Amino acid sequence: MTRAKQVPKRRLRLGIVGGGRPGSIGPTHRRAALMDGHWDVVAGAFSRNPEVGRATGRDWLMDEDRIYTDYQSMAESEARRPDRIDAVTICTYNTTHYEIAAAFLDRGFHVICDKPLTTTAENAADLAQRARKANVIFALTHAFSACPMVRQAREMIAAGELGKIRSVATEFVSEYQADAPSSGDWQNNPELCGPLGAVANCGTHVFHLLEYVTGLKVNELSADLASLVPGHRLDDHATLHLRFDNGARGFLWNTTIAPGNENGLSIRVFGSKGGLEWWQEHPNHMRYTPINGTTQILTRGGPKASPAAQAVTRVPSGHPEGYLEAFANLYTEVAAAIIAREHGPTSTAKPPFPTVDDGVRGVAFMLATLQSSRDSSRFVALEDFIL
Amino acid sequence: MTRAKQVPKRRLRLGIVGGGRPGSIGPTHRRAALMDGHWDVVAGAFSRNPEVGRATGRDWLMDEDRIYTDYQSMAESEARRPDRIDAVTICTYNTTHYEIAAAFLDRGFHVICDKPLTTTAENAADLAQRARKANVIFALTHAFSACPMVRQAREMIAAGELGKIRSVATEFVSEYQADAPSSGDWQNNPELCGPLGAVANCGTHVFHLLEYVTGLKVNELSADLASLVPGHRLDDHATLHLRFDNGARGFLWNTTIAPGNENGLSIRVFGSKGGLEWWQEHPNHMRYTPINGTTQILTRGGPKASPAAQAVTRVPSGHPEGYLEAFANLYTEVAAAIIAREHGPTSTAKPPFPTVDDGVRGVAFMLATLQSSRDSSRFVALEDFIL
Amino acid sequence: MTRAKQVPKRRLRLGIVGGGRPGSIGPTHRRAALMDGHWDVVAGAFSRNPEVGRATGRDWLMDEDRIYTDYQSMAESEARRPDRIDAVTICTYNTTHYEIAAAFLDRGFHVICDKPLTTTAENAADLAQRARKANVIFALTHAFSACPMVRQAREMIAAGELGKIRSVATEFVSEYQADAPSSGDWQNNPELCGPLGAVANCGTHVFHLLEYVTGLKVNELSADLASLVPGHRLDDHATLHLRFDNGARGFLWNTTIAPGNENGLSIRVFGSKGGLEWWQEHPNHMRYTPINGTTQILTRGGPKASPAAQAVTRVPSGHPEGYLEAFANLYTEVAAAIIAREHGPTSTAKPPFPTVDDGVRGVAFMLATLQSSRDSSRFVALEDFIL
Amino acid sequence: MTRAKQVPKRRLRLGIVGGGRPGSIGPTHRRAALMDGHWDVVAGAFSRNPEVGRATGRDWLMDEDRIYTDYQSMAESEARRPDRIDAVTICTYNTTHYEIAAAFLDRGFHVICDKPLTTTAENAADLAQRARKANVIFALTHAFSACPMVRQAREMIAAGELGKIRSVATEFVSEYQADAPSSGDWQNNPELCGPLGAVANCGTHVFHLLEYVTGLKVNELSADLASLVPGHRLDDHATLHLRFDNGARGFLWNTTIAPGNENGLSIRVFGSKGGLEWWQEHPNHMRYTPINGTTQILTRGGPKASPAAQAVTRVPSGHPEGYLEAFANLYTEVAAAIIAREHGPTSTAKPPFPTVDDGVRGVAFMLATLQSSRDSSRFVALEDFIL
Repeated sequence: MTRAKQVPKRRLRLGIVGGGRPGSIGPTHRRAALMDGHWDVVAGAFSRNPEVGRATGRDWLMDEDRIYTDYQSMAESEARRPDRIDAVTICTYNTTHYEIAAAFLDRGFHVICDKPLTTTAENAADLAQRARKANVIFALTHAFSACPMVRQAREMIAAGELGKIRSVATEFVSEYQADAPSSGDWQNNPELCGPLGAVANCGTHVFHLLEYVTGLKVNELSADLASLVPGHRLDDHATLHLRFDNGARGFLWNTTIAPGNENGLSIRVFGSKGGLEWWQEHPNHMRYTPINGTTQILTRGGPKASPAAQAVTRVPSGHPEGYLEAFANLYTEVAAAIIAREHGPTSTAKPPFPTVDDGVRGVAFMLATLQSSRDSSRFVALEDFIL
Repeated sequence: MTRAKQVPKRRLRLGIVGGGRPGSIGPTHRRAALMDGHWDVVAGAFSRNPEVGRATGRDWLMDEDRIYTDYQSMAESEARRPDRIDAVTICTYNTTHYEIAAAFLDRGFHVICDKPLTTTAENAADLAQRARKANVIFALTHAFSACPMVRQAREMIAAGELGKIRSVATEFVSEYQADAPSSGDWQNNPELCGPLGAVANCGTHVFHLLEYVTGLKVNELSADLASLVPGHRLDDHATLHLRFDNGARGFLWNTTIAPGNENGLSIRVFGSKGGLEWWQEHPNHMRYTPINGTTQILTRGGPKASPAAQAVTRVPSGHPEGYLEAFANLYTEVAAAIIAREHGPTSTAKPPFPTVDDGVRGVAFMLATLQSSRDSSRFVALEDFIL
Repeated sequence: MTRAKQVPKRRLRLGIVGGGRPGSIGPTHRRAALMDGHWDVVAGAFSRNPEVGRATGRDWLMDEDRIYTDYQSMAESEARRPDRIDAVTICTYNTTHYEIAAAFLDRGFHVICDKPLTTTAENAADLAQRARKANVIFALTHAFSACPMVRQAREMIAAGELGKIRSVATEFVSEYQADAPSSGDWQNNPELCGPLGAVANCGTHVFHLLEYVTGLKVNELSADLASLVPGHRLDDHATLHLRFDNGARGFLWNTTIAPGNENGLSIRVFGSKGGLEWWQEHPNHMRYTPINGTTQILTRGGPKASPAAQAVTRVPSGHPEGYLEAFANLYTEVAAAIIAREHGPTSTAKPPFPTVDDGVRGVAFMLATLQSSRDSSRFVALEDFIL
Repeated sequence: MTRAKQVPKRRLRLGIVGGGRPGSIGPTHRRAALMDGHWDVVAGAFSRNPEVGRATGRDWLMDEDRIYTDYQSMAESEARRPDRIDAVTICTYNTTHYEIAAAFLDRGFHVICDKPLTTTAENAADLAQRARKANVIFALTHAFSACPMVRQAREMIAAGELGKIRSVATEFVSEYQADAPSSGDWQNNPELCGPLGAVANCGTHVFHLLEYVTGLKVNELSADLASLVPGHRLDDHATLHLRFDNGARGFLWNTTIAPGNENGLSIRVFGSKGGLEWWQEHPNHMRYTPINGTTQILTRGGPKASPAAQAVTRVPSGHPEGYLEAFANLYTEVAAAIIAREHGPTSTAKPPFPTVDDGVRGVAFMLATLQSSRDSSRFVALEDFIL
């Protein structure tokens, strides 16, 4: 292991908005924060339902006075405490991210927010501005992008090992909405989810991944959105043609109604010197093929593991790391960034984790998709949706 | 084995136009014809180069007087012989299919033709008309569609096991044009290849496969074509949005410049009751997932092998069959169809193998793709390219 | 998620002996303890090298007075503290487990010990006796056995879903000793490792796994041990015939010199009603085949996830869990067992995690293997090595 | 394609003993002989049941006077014909191979015989002697050894690419006897099958494969045989420790009662410079790992395809070849050997296909396995069973 030293000098304090039981997203954030020993989880407003919120906080052995019933009182109370939280995690419905993030940003808390950042371009731009004004860390939890092999792919491409990138194929294929919709499915409720469904909840992940890995920007896209399961009020199927700033082409396929696919996020990148393929459900491996050569199976911790991959690797090769470890990478990197900001001049370098600016692009991606699909799939420029 | 009886009462005589060494397509046709013992290969015009043609014929132990130097003399000579060939195989450059097929059709020979049928809609329609007039068998060698698991997929879908089909994802991803083009690459030469490159040579395969398997028709498509490798005069990358006659959606990704992909043809079909996935490079297996159920690995010859799959299965499960066996299935089915036509009334049922009518649709697919791509990827109706 | 409630009412305090940097085993134990929020890591004697020990403790933000330079002073000091550790983790060289465990057991601490328990049958029996006398929890960290799909396999077999077990095939294949040995490889040093090499360090894992999963006991075994890499002083290759108490047969293959295998632990179990196959490097999946049926891919969190698997599942299907999560399952289960012992009568039920009694069998397995191999591979009874 | 020229100058004539319908072994031999165009199948005694034999011959469009009712009359009649068969294929029950082969050898026919060669060491030695006396080709149909990637593995090992071979892991795992035995299962009938069951019918394949690929000889073995399914009269499960002439170790696991395994033949070879792994059910791929390097996926026809692999490759990479193509490789190589013997001095080089001498070793393997298992799995020398 050559895991880079990213060890804060003190343990940071985290609060969580949303994530009450029985869902899995709250425990996911908590475990990701705890795993490496850089965070204590000390406060939270876990649910709109006070009983659920309280039960969640007690399960987690939290002090009663820091189990809040709503985010506003949490933001206000924490702002007054000497041992106030360092950062807040926001894992609520899409349409609520904006107001919650704004409330904490304006009180100077660092923010860790689930995707999509917001559901309108205006709100996205506004959060970006507030974050800059507050001079805090704003991380967006595209956790898949923190997998070691993703970091390695990015590093290899940046180093030119694939040559000029020519094409990119991406998918996010799952089955969780294949059956008839239940009334409680918030992802089928525009009031909670916003104007896009699968594309907001899954598509933005793969959009971030493809720009993150390739270092390219999507200039324009052509989209065909559909709601194929009766009762679905939002998109459950999308196909996109992509055109990149360097002339590369690609596609993105996103669906939540494909029986036999649990969480099928993947990326395949092809350039003038070789190709790479990575599948999220098998995150410890990556296929790499130099042009005219044999395919190699690169492994996390294996003989060709790159520095960027090693920096986020915990256990030896052959001992699988997974989703929680990727998520924990974000928390560790955010902790390091917070400590660095406390102890030194503000760095202007782009951090390794996604930020509010990635969130702005993700919202633009969503809205461009919607626009193209409504206009017979003609190509639409992403730039038009970044205010 | 419950392989259906498809045994002709006599061995048929085959001639081949094209396929001279050193390429692999001629030997592929010959082996596919020989494998099941229903055909003798007795005549051929294997090459425009007389020496290559003669050497090929001698390798194959053929009589000297049936090794022809051009297709015209072959068609004329064979037409006069009492032991004339029953059928001709055409495995030449795309732009020559039309004239060769017409020459043999007009003399009453059955025809087995490589895809694409032609490179213009007019020629395609004309061949279909000539084939009907000659009352002969006209088979198009979409051999992948003859794999046992493809037959099973088709049968399961027709029986409603997947419910209403909602979405179809198809790929044909290869690497054979990833390196800088050589001057001898006929697939980069519009005079030999026609107006489309990868889409003509690979895309038409996957287009046939998706209609064959699902039983649906593509109504309209949106395409983005590109030539991404410097020096390529024809498309080497294409992405398509597909809309089907029953409301289903889908995509088709076709490229020949993806290092690490040898011959990556695949199809994934999802319906209201379940999903299926099949990958040509692993043709003996298919993934099947009933909705809310576990994924099952269906195998050729295995416990859930369907009658249509068993009918084209030669060896027990676990003993891999491959590309040549799929190709041989076409030859055996064509032999059976020829014998049936000799011995009974003309059947009006659609045969299990692709015909000239599938070729007409394949050409329409090519031309619609070209049209959409030239018009900012707007949707184009396939019907407009079927004369 | 239906993760069973196993939440302690207080956070427990853990100390660690061994595991100083730069190795990965110390951080692995720490992360496994922290992940679910049931433990604080508060004390340790991390290394025989005081500087390494101190640096490790500081990295982990520990109080200076609880960073010890040796296990004896740690055991004594902690025993006197009012906030003494609840349990100690022992992750040192094989030959030191006995003395360290004895020191903590005799002071009433719960113990979490790496495998193998000891390197002699006498020491193993003695520790088992001390643990019973101290009435504490003694857990052995066969972490692979805590993977959700392993739990499911065990539950399915116990429920009779595979019928009578007939055969068991197990492997632990890795490459970490394939190159010429380095002088610092403690696994090649009998003084640190004991009389067995690969079999002690890897073989005992798979031996535990096979008895754990099948519920059977190995009655006798025939072994062929070898040291195939020049310079190896201990076994690097072993093959075993296994005979089980119910008449089943099996084999175990264990090697550390197989290039291309990172951590290839697997188990395949076959009975009169079906078969199961699980591979540690792909821990979220398991193959299950009912007799005369199709193979099914069971997944962690998927439609057929069993209660025992769900109880140790954190995130939804398709979001991979891995080695650290399996390890963390042990820590969470041990925490629950400690709290239960504090708050109620001593349970006599076998806990879900491996205990000192499993350690005794593991040592017997090692010694029987050595004996059989020295005697021309004749069968040897395991019972003869349990004192 | 650089397929080596192995083209006979005339088409050879083949007769077949055994293989009548409905089994698949007769059609397999016929297709393998026909596929490359070097053989006509002109005579046969397909079944002890005259009606079955006749129906089979008619299906195959054979002349009535060459459809025989027994092998003796076939051998005698064919010996008198001017257009007599060149070679006979023997695909009958194990215990009948000896007498049939002797009858044809003594009349000067070349012989292609299924494995195992015989069921006693005496008969094996006698056939080897008769074959030498008759100066004919005697091929044994270990078809798996003729897969292109097996040829490549052998060539790479012979060239030293794996260094000194240290260990070999082999399996042949299937499920065809997992259910209760039927009365008609000839593999459960010692009169038809001989004294060994699974080991005779599958184990001999993998034994040949491991010596063929590694170029090593098994010196001694320790075996544990079992009949685990009630009603089985012969072995259905075997595990073996293997010791090679160069000091390498290995194991062989052979069973026919493992649900979920169709035809799981595999070989893994590890040496001082690297490792190789090949699985028969995915015959177009092989894993190769140089020591301390990344695993590479070698493919049939791919960039690192070796000359020996190319020589038995028909279609481009990515177009799967399978079991019939491997079988056909044997027929093509035997045809070339027959023609070479007709046209030149007798070569003393070992041919690429298995011969009667390999059959002698296979029988010794069977008998040594039986002997070791009866003697508490003590090691037994193979040499003791070669007369």
